[in-house]
Amino acid sequence: MKTVKIGLLGLGNVGGGTYQILTENKEIIEKRTGLTPEVVKILQRSRGKKRLVEVPDNLLTEDPDDIIKNPDIDIVVEMIGGIEPATSFMVQAMKEGKHVVSANKAAIAANYRLLTNTAKENGVEFLFEASVAGGIPVLTAIQNPLQANNFVEVMGILNGTTNYILTKMTEEGLPYDEVLKDAQAKGFAEADPTADVEGIDAANKLSILIALCFGKHIDPTAIPTVGITGVGADDIKAAAESGKKIKLIGKASLRDGMVEYMVAPTLLDEKHPLAGVSNEFNAVYITGDMVGELMFYGRGAGPLPTGSAVCGDILKIMKEKF
Amino acid sequence: MKTVKIGLLGLGNVGGGTYQILTENKEIIEKRTGLTPEVVKILQRSRGKKRLVEVPDNLLTEDPDDIIKNPDIDIVVEMIGGIEPATSFMVQAMKEGKHVVSANKAAIAANYRLLTNTAKENGVEFLFEASVAGGIPVLTAIQNPLQANNFVEVMGILNGTTNYILTKMTEEGLPYDEVLKDAQAKGFAEADPTADVEGIDAANKLSILIALCFGKHIDPTAIPTVGITGVGADDIKAAAESGKKIKLIGKASLRDGMVEYMVAPTLLDEKHPLAGVSNEFNAVYITGDMVGELMFYGRGAGPLPTGSAVCGDILKIMKEKF
Repeated sequence: MKTVKIGLLGLGNVGGGTYQILTENKEIIEKRTGLTPEVVKILQRSRGKKRLVEVPDNLLTEDPDDIIKNPDIDIVVEMIGGIEPATSFMVQAMKEGKHVVSANKAAIAANYRLLTNTAKENGVEFLFEASVAGGIPVLTAIQNPLQANNFVEVMGILNGTTNYILTKMTEEGLPYDEVLKDAQAKGFAEADPTADVEGIDAANKLSILIALCFGKHIDPTAIPTVGITGVGADDIKAAAESGKKIKLIGKASLRDGMVEYMVAPTLLDEKHPLAGVSNEFNAVYITGDMVGELMFYGRGAGPLPTGSAVCGDILKIMKEKF
Repeated sequence: MKTVKIGLLGLGNVGGGTYQILTENKEIIEKRTGLTPEVVKILQRSRGKKRLVEVPDNLLTEDPDDIIKNPDIDIVVEMIGGIEPATSFMVQAMKEGKHVVSANKAAIAANYRLLTNTAKENGVEFLFEASVAGGIPVLTAIQNPLQANNFVEVMGILNGTTNYILTKMTEEGLPYDEVLKDAQAKGFAEADPTADVEGIDAANKLSILIALCFGKHIDPTAIPTVGITGVGADDIKAAAESGKKIKLIGKASLRDGMVEYMVAPTLLDEKHPLAGVSNEFNAVYITGDMVGELMFYGRGAGPLPTGSAVCGDILKIMKEKF
């Protein structure tokens, strides 16, 4: 069976999950693609860090060029996070003729045109299903089976941390600070929760959804963004009394040919399909001119759900290019 | 711009919707694919029938060979419904080297192996996203972005007519017979509702989901199937009193390496994501070993939602094969 050689940039949550899936589900992947995926090199810069998965020492490197410039590697998977050096690594890898898969919403939202153009110029695939809503295959849906639609609106619960906090505030009547501390203790929120609670992470994901639905790149810093730090227990109580729920929503709509967009805490009627999306779950609600309303629901984060989306992209490249 | 020539078998609900989308959304389709889709022939056997869309007379034919054996046609789209002559038409078209798109769950569920093998033997594409859950792109999700998962369970509300009836019985406390008559008057149920209310339509769709998730073809007549005709207003009331809803569920699970399957009215906890799926909407709930739980929600029927899925398949073939 022919082998497709893969290099991983990063071995954190997503990198670990991806490695685990490629290893544990090798048999079903071989059966479905007729090819063997083989991870031949992994960039891990902080060797001392506790790892989620066991990886043979000889696969690890601290030099990104061992992957990016490695003539043996077919697919480079970028899971470092952050805008740089991730963007430069991806651009270099594409210029070396490698297909690139990324889970990195910050880098893609900031450099969408550069990355997609570099892929085109070098005749390689650039796929990033994992960058929005983790394991939920919403980008594939937009880019393939829904392509005969003009998109009218895309809105979603795009950040699991803030949805977990708002759910606990709603169900248990607790104040924001207390729930945040609990979420941090349980690993649902980071020590520095700024990117999540201020809506920055959701704005990155919305920027990518806008690019795919409406063919326009809006820099995420240009998206009007309000986080959840100003949402009080009183607001949630008042909402409930009028049959509504408060959710952090990223939303983009087409109005008179213009795309309007924002990220903000939003009142949703309790009957709206997004109102029932609780805890750390994500969901994306899309309206197309022909298909009408659709919702995609699932786990927006976590090593295995996100790794599932990364591996889906890897398998797509394996099937189409090898 | 290069033209891809399409022949439509059938000009009923789905055929009409597909023609309308290819015509009205031609501009966005050309922009996204770089190709022009051109419908060159349409099989319509009952000329007198009232049509949903206006179609130039010179496109119509009563002879299927004008499409199946037409050397000018690249893609044949089968939307006749029923097992025969639809299956034979598809097989013949594939043997003539044409790619085939179908919305026909009955024919695909009955002849899954024949149709997929014929496509393989003749090196053509055979796509059928519209056959399960109408506009919801769940088959693409299973076949592409989720391919690194071993599927654990797939369950869904796969029939809009019965979901509409059960929703009205639940919300308005009305008996089955009365709601059925109302649904027939509103066009949500057919004059002969047998295939819907007896669960036959849901079993066809479940057969296709089983084939894609578990790699096994189960003839739909071999799926234990109970419809909704035995569900009484009392059952629904008793369910509500214990915090549950009754939904017609098609479900297949892997247990000890074996696939178990059935279609039956099922008690769902009110918090289950499928319990909130009301009226004519469909939803499919999938569990993968890596991605966890996912739900796909949307319109499972109707000319435009189903046509959206048919056109998604057409565009996929256009992008990959032309």
